Amino acid sequence: MAITPGTDQPPAWGTTEVVGKALPRVDAYERVSGTAVYPLDLTLPDMLHAAIVRCPHAHARVKRVDTSRASAMPGVRAILTGESEGARLPWYPGQNGPTSLLFDPQCRYEGEEVAAVAAESIHEAREAARAIVVEYETLPFVVDPAKALEPGAPAVHEGGNRIGEVFRDARGDVKKGFAEADVVRERTYRTACQIHTPMEVHGSVVRWDGDRLTVWDSTQGVFGVRSEVAASLEMPLAKVRVIGHYMGGGFGSKLEAGKYTVIAALLAKAAGRPVKLFITREESFLCVGNRPPNSITVTAGVRKDGTLTALQWTNIGSSGAYPDGSSTGYLARDLYRCPNVLVEETDVFINAGRARAMRAPGFPQGAWALEQMMDELAEAIGMDPVAFRLKNVPDVSQVRGNMPFTSTGLARCLSDGADAFGWKAGRARPRGAGPVVRGVGVAACMWGWNGDPRATAILKFFGDGSASLTFGASDIGTGTKTVMAMVVAEELGIPLDRIALEHADTGTTPFTVGSGGSQTSLVSAPAVRSAALDVKRQILQMAAEQLKVDAVSLTLTGGEIRGGPTPLLLKDLERLQEQEVVVGVGSREPHPPGKVALPFAVHFAEVEVDTRTGEVRLLRLLGTHDSGRVMSRLTFDNQVFGGMTMGIGFGMTEARVIDRNTGRVVSANWHDYKLPTAMDVPPEMTCMPIDPHDTECNSVGSKGLGEPATIPTAAAIANAVYHATGVRVTDTPINPVQLVRLLATRRAGR
Amino acid sequence: MAITPGTDQPPAWGTTEVVGKALPRVDAYERVSGTAVYPLDLTLPDMLHAAIVRCPHAHARVKRVDTSRASAMPGVRAILTGESEGARLPWYPGQNGPTSLLFDPQCRYEGEEVAAVAAESIHEAREAARAIVVEYETLPFVVDPAKALEPGAPAVHEGGNRIGEVFRDARGDVKKGFAEADVVRERTYRTACQIHTPMEVHGSVVRWDGDRLTVWDSTQGVFGVRSEVAASLEMPLAKVRVIGHYMGGGFGSKLEAGKYTVIAALLAKAAGRPVKLFITREESFLCVGNRPPNSITVTAGVRKDGTLTALQWTNIGSSGAYPDGSSTGYLARDLYRCPNVLVEETDVFINAGRARAMRAPGFPQGAWALEQMMDELAEAIGMDPVAFRLKNVPDVSQVRGNMPFTSTGLARCLSDGADAFGWKAGRARPRGAGPVVRGVGVAACMWGWNGDPRATAILKFFGDGSASLTFGASDIGTGTKTVMAMVVAEELGIPLDRIALEHADTGTTPFTVGSGGSQTSLVSAPAVRSAALDVKRQILQMAAEQLKVDAVSLTLTGGEIRGGPTPLLLKDLERLQEQEVVVGVGSREPHPPGKVALPFAVHFAEVEVDTRTGEVRLLRLLGTHDSGRVMSRLTFDNQVFGGMTMGIGFGMTEARVIDRNTGRVVSANWHDYKLPTAMDVPPEMTCMPIDPHDTECNSVGSKGLGEPATIPTAAAIANAVYHATGVRVTDTPINPVQLVRLLATRRAGR
Repeated sequence: MAITPGTDQPPAWGTTEVVGKALPRVDAYERVSGTAVYPLDLTLPDMLHAAIVRCPHAHARVKRVDTSRASAMPGVRAILTGESEGARLPWYPGQNGPTSLLFDPQCRYEGEEVAAVAAESIHEAREAARAIVVEYETLPFVVDPAKALEPGAPAVHEGGNRIGEVFRDARGDVKKGFAEADVVRERTYRTACQIHTPMEVHGSVVRWDGDRLTVWDSTQGVFGVRSEVAASLEMPLAKVRVIGHYMGGGFGSKLEAGKYTVIAALLAKAAGRPVKLFITREESFLCVGNRPPNSITVTAGVRKDGTLTALQWTNIGSSGAYPDGSSTGYLARDLYRCPNVLVEETDVFINAGRARAMRAPGFPQGAWALEQMMDELAEAIGMDPVAFRLKNVPDVSQVRGNMPFTSTGLARCLSDGADAFGWKAGRARPRGAGPVVRGVGVAACMWGWNGDPRATAILKFFGDGSASLTFGASDIGTGTKTVMAMVVAEELGIPLDRIALEHADTGTTPFTVGSGGSQTSLVSAPAVRSAALDVKRQILQMAAEQLKVDAVSLTLTGGEIRGGPTPLLLKDLERLQEQEVVVGVGSREPHPPGKVALPFAVHFAEVEVDTRTGEVRLLRLLGTHDSGRVMSRLTFDNQVFGGMTMGIGFGMTEARVIDRNTGRVVSANWHDYKLPTAMDVPPEMTCMPIDPHDTECNSVGSKGLGEPATIPTAAAIANAVYHATGVRVTDTPINPVQLVRLLATRRAGR
Repeated sequence: MAITPGTDQPPAWGTTEVVGKALPRVDAYERVSGTAVYPLDLTLPDMLHAAIVRCPHAHARVKRVDTSRASAMPGVRAILTGESEGARLPWYPGQNGPTSLLFDPQCRYEGEEVAAVAAESIHEAREAARAIVVEYETLPFVVDPAKALEPGAPAVHEGGNRIGEVFRDARGDVKKGFAEADVVRERTYRTACQIHTPMEVHGSVVRWDGDRLTVWDSTQGVFGVRSEVAASLEMPLAKVRVIGHYMGGGFGSKLEAGKYTVIAALLAKAAGRPVKLFITREESFLCVGNRPPNSITVTAGVRKDGTLTALQWTNIGSSGAYPDGSSTGYLARDLYRCPNVLVEETDVFINAGRARAMRAPGFPQGAWALEQMMDELAEAIGMDPVAFRLKNVPDVSQVRGNMPFTSTGLARCLSDGADAFGWKAGRARPRGAGPVVRGVGVAACMWGWNGDPRATAILKFFGDGSASLTFGASDIGTGTKTVMAMVVAEELGIPLDRIALEHADTGTTPFTVGSGGSQTSLVSAPAVRSAALDVKRQILQMAAEQLKVDAVSLTLTGGEIRGGPTPLLLKDLERLQEQEVVVGVGSREPHPPGKVALPFAVHFAEVEVDTRTGEVRLLRLLGTHDSGRVMSRLTFDNQVFGGMTMGIGFGMTEARVIDRNTGRVVSANWHDYKLPTAMDVPPEMTCMPIDPHDTECNSVGSKGLGEPATIPTAAAIANAVYHATGVRVTDTPINPVQLVRLLATRRAGR
């Protein structure tokens, strides 16, 4: 049979028995007991450990690599440099534009790979790496995106620092729009570079079996990693097996293959031994991606009645030393009804680590600017910020030729959220005389991607009523395994503890797209449901033959087939017992034509600011989310709270700091790079799903949650800080250093 | 879609491009380089090692087990006895009749399990096992099947030593048949107990992940082991994962779960650590099965013209201490046309290790008796043994209501084989005056089982034209992986080195029956072919849509779609490249109704006997086999030579020797139990497939080979020894000790 997108979409669920409940994770025991084996925990017999030598300069040319001392050191089994046999491989960062080599003689940022060592222990490997002598010719560098565009700036690549063409998207006529406006405001917002620094650092364990390579990778998408590793090593896809059973966070930085994986494979081949190569925490701040820094100038026009007339958006961002993208304009183009929009975005090279997709790429930066501007406009026309947003809620996607949404919960997110949060009371409350003042803020968002519908699932249903589900998606900590098991339980009435799961292994599971872009549930769950329906159809057909009734009159519930003359237990279903197993296969149906399914969210924040110290205390956060059906209430809350916490980091604590004099990252560790901790989350953090049971988006009704959960948080906090202090914080992070300066400036009346 | 036996059978292959060729194993590199990880090689982090305490008596009752000293020994982490929490489990030998406990207080044979220990090292585990003090009450025992039937014999189980009813199968009237005969002969033949002693001993590595058990087992059938382990531990099937990627031989003894697996699981649970439990070589001679000893009295009548008129068969065999079966009469009932047949078989308990299926259960014993009797009859009527057999070749299965065979190559095995072997010349050659004499002998056989047709295969075909095949069967060393890859290569035109294989893992592969009974190729290959056809159908459908032609006009050859306006490369097949993968699913079609597909074989032997020492030198062996299509000529030869070598062991060297005074096995090691070695195989060992391209048996035309390869060897050698010496050796093994005695008796004219 054909396992291809395009199968008929089964009818959407009405009410559900299992799906939506707050059930514990199916792998909770493994996760909390420590028996879950993450790639970082994996040990193979005879395994070597590897370390990478990285360039300490922002920009330099490698003149000589002397491995003589290192190769004589104890335990050393293999060393690779750009000159090594088979190591002169091109490297594709998965984007157009200039590519580089696996070990590129021109190092364009601090941390670029120069050599690697495999040894019996990680200590011997690192010792040997330190003993490799590299002679560099340092080159002039640039680390500031604006400076990078100035004439005569050091060139990161030949052909100047502008990456591709300026992205330009226009609708209507902004000039006309500004002319029609009662109020026009313009302001520039800046966001610092945020770094993915997941609990589990990036790395792989690799083993060769003859001509077959097995990779245990800490990844969000085994099939994507397989394609890139196979391409780099020029191997058939079928001969590269990538396994990613557990992984300790990625946030977008683990959707593609890392150089470390290919380097590990080459070391393993050279040494004839399995190799484990995980980067250090410090390395992770340099070379595995980031949310690019942006500088966004927004000009907006509005009528007194609250109608948006024009939005102009000029963004300069930097992908870093290699192209990735730093666009931020999506929300300006699609979140609110606006006839005249002009977005211009410029991406530039600098001598710093390359950006990678990071939870809602571009969107938190966009919300930071747009949602503060919305606040400013509302104030200018004397309108409540929630009411102002409600006035401009769209019912079609303006960037998709006004294609209607399958469902739009934005208005309910705003109004229901405002009621639940006590918005009116919060706004009305005087900020107080100080020194400690209070305020509330709001910010809205949508997410702009409805998923790649390619997914296949295989379900084996056994004679004792237990089942084994095989699907390709990674569970990146979001509870995917639990949600997929719940879908099977829903359709077949099997208790969760009788469902075994095999997932995220290119050798044993069918193809599924990577777990990113908030698409995992909405892509994989329909495929799993369709596999379960395939099993059910076969079981009921068998029962119908045995009972000599029509299959349509039968139902499968709790291991019992009902609807016949008498209930039939599975153990009495002769054909099933004879066969021992029924195998069902399902695939995701394509997106509904003519409509787009996208999630929406609104975050409300209440803060307390100490005007003497510039310290901001978060008192409350509420997230209202339209993600379609809630698949599991527990994982739903986990996602929202995790996303909010990341938003707190983006808005208040995190920043990659590069020393302009040396071009080196001075915040490349968890002491200097401030991740929010349990001390930084508000005592009251709640979430409220707006659950319209979207019956059109797909057969399970889910629209995705991971991304929206982090988009508006920082902007909501900034708006609350403004409400509390009257100070508009345009640059992230909102830390005491900056706020104290802004408060002083304001007191000085400047 | 339904993955159930019953899909339409595709047309049988005509000539093939890949299938049938002598291609090297797809896993040859791993096997010869030692990188293949057999369960015995497997090491898991934190793994404990275990040892079993076994009863040293043939029959005893356990009175007390004192583990106090053992539990205090270094490295000991868990100890189990029959009294341990959760260890009082019933044990099912997979047969009807009396069952026992996992640790049964009544030990019915030397080697029965009494206790077990898990410790940090295998040495500490064995030390501790030795330190467990067991107090036994020894009981009277019986180890001779005939004595076991005598009144007053010690009872192995309550209710006497006869196992079930005497098996009786009669057709026609033997009395009448004997009356019609010109010659009637009667003789009793005895076969010693042969022990499976595979290169890799029996054992498992087990690990618990929460409530899920993973078992790496040295097994022939992961699904069978799963069912038995799940039943013993009362777990859902889906929560027991059995993996059997490589295994070092089983010959029938690894088709079921061993107590060692369940014991390992209980120890792992008690210790909270993975456990490795492999029995020792010495233990393997006591407790993992054997080919039961048989005593067969054959009475046969024949007319001068060579027509068989009657066959009477009386067999006494012993399953050992637990029921398994010791029948030998199949060949007497079905190999030759005979109107009057009476078979009576008695199975008895003795205090010895239980029999298990061993390569062609009962058939080598049956051939030993029947084929020597055929020789004796031929001589009595002055007819050539080959001509005599040819005269009685059947064209229907007499035990299946005269159901016709899909193909019968027996006649060609006899006649073509005789020509190839130089039979006439060999028979004509005078045996010589001695002391060294020569002779030739022949023996024929069939196999009586055409397989359990339940198999499903899943094939993933990737955009780069490589493929990944998933099937459930174990490759027990016979080249199953290679054969399945060849089937994919045949249908899709993919080179073998672009096909990856995942097999024998209940967690990741679809259900397939165990690799035993010569059924693996004929059950799994059609399922794999059907999966490949499913992929091909989808690919051609995609191409037809893109090329706007009818799919039936297209073919897929060498990564290219031909038959359209221009050849279409896979990389240009848009839908495939967009999807990245096509998943095909296939299942084995049921057996053709109204016919039976069974393999036949004839072995020819030439020997040289030193009449002074009784030493027999094998000069030549030729195996002629009708197994339908030869799937791979290399694996075909491997199977036949391996089977012949096992036949040499059965006929000439192997015997379990039990001391009648102690009831203990005195040949429980490779010093005293003589396996044939390279020194014992003839300088000339050849095989010749009779390849009738059976187009009815199934969609690949294969009828199975593993079993027939070992059935007639010993009988052919015995007949050659008779031809050389005039001495009829009725008991296995034909060793110098016995032969010298028989020659002396003959010289003395007794």
